[in-house]
Amino acid sequence: MIISTEIESLVQSLAKRLMEKNYQLATAESCTGGLIGAVCTELSGSSAWFQCALVTYSNSAKQGLLGVHPDTLLNYGAVSKETVAEMCSGALKHRADIVVAVSGVAGPLGGSEEKPVGTVYIGWQIKSEAPRVNRFKFAGDRADVRHQATYEALKGLIKLLD
Amino acid sequence: MIISTEIESLVQSLAKRLMEKNYQLATAESCTGGLIGAVCTELSGSSAWFQCALVTYSNSAKQGLLGVHPDTLLNYGAVSKETVAEMCSGALKHRADIVVAVSGVAGPLGGSEEKPVGTVYIGWQIKSEAPRVNRFKFAGDRADVRHQATYEALKGLIKLLD
Repeated sequence: MIISTEIESLVQSLAKRLMEKNYQLATAESCTGGLIGAVCTELSGSSAWFQCALVTYSNSAKQGLLGVHPDTLLNYGAVSKETVAEMCSGALKHRADIVVAVSGVAGPLGGSEEKPVGTVYIGWQIKSEAPRVNRFKFAGDRADVRHQATYEALKGLIKLLD
Repeated sequence: MIISTEIESLVQSLAKRLMEKNYQLATAESCTGGLIGAVCTELSGSSAWFQCALVTYSNSAKQGLLGVHPDTLLNYGAVSKETVAEMCSGALKHRADIVVAVSGVAGPLGGSEEKPVGTVYIGWQIKSEAPRVNRFKFAGDRADVRHQATYEALKGLIKLLD
């Protein structure tokens, strides 16, 4: 797991914007497993804007910590637009002003025809707005998929704040 | 943030032991910011034993997500044996059988005479046992401190399982 200077520079841009708005960030992470939280808090002074990360790897954690509805998981699966939208709304309840949520198939196991390895849904939500969720298809191995998901998660947060 | 092969090999040893016992792991992370969750879930198949990570960077997240008592934070501080013991007990409530909790001063800011930069408390707890908390003093910069804390957190989990 090597964090690129590209990601470091995204975190710096994000930090600047969050501090300007006095916003607290929370992350809700499944396939990235805490990586977004880890790269954010690598920056000194991040305690000013980083509220918490909810790394809900299991379905029961998605329900318990983020309030994802069991029917959503049953009908659409953990890797879906619907689940990620609910992960966003759940994360916002933890004293955050803006959140990012990620769920995907990092591989090498777990892929299907409909959702092959590299399929990742990323959602962003700012308080009092609706969540926006995008579907990505990343190339490479498990580490590559998680790295690209982290990159896009941060890029989307910056875009939402601009 | 470069994860050493040493840590990768610790995660493999940990995974083996957790699967043998059919145990679910949760982490409660402050200064490591999700790094322990990230290195655990870098291993394919970790969904079999990784339940969740609660990255409680703020004091309010430590209270809300882990049930750390406000008086504990007030009397002993976030970086203390007492807070980390409560972080352990709080994490165990999230459907985990074994947990690790970390709170420390990663630096370069935030150090004091009593708790200089590099001071990290790490706690481990297995269900139906009491938490054990150790104080460490790590050398190096912010990344070094977080890396060493992650290493010791994993090593302590393995020791507890043996």
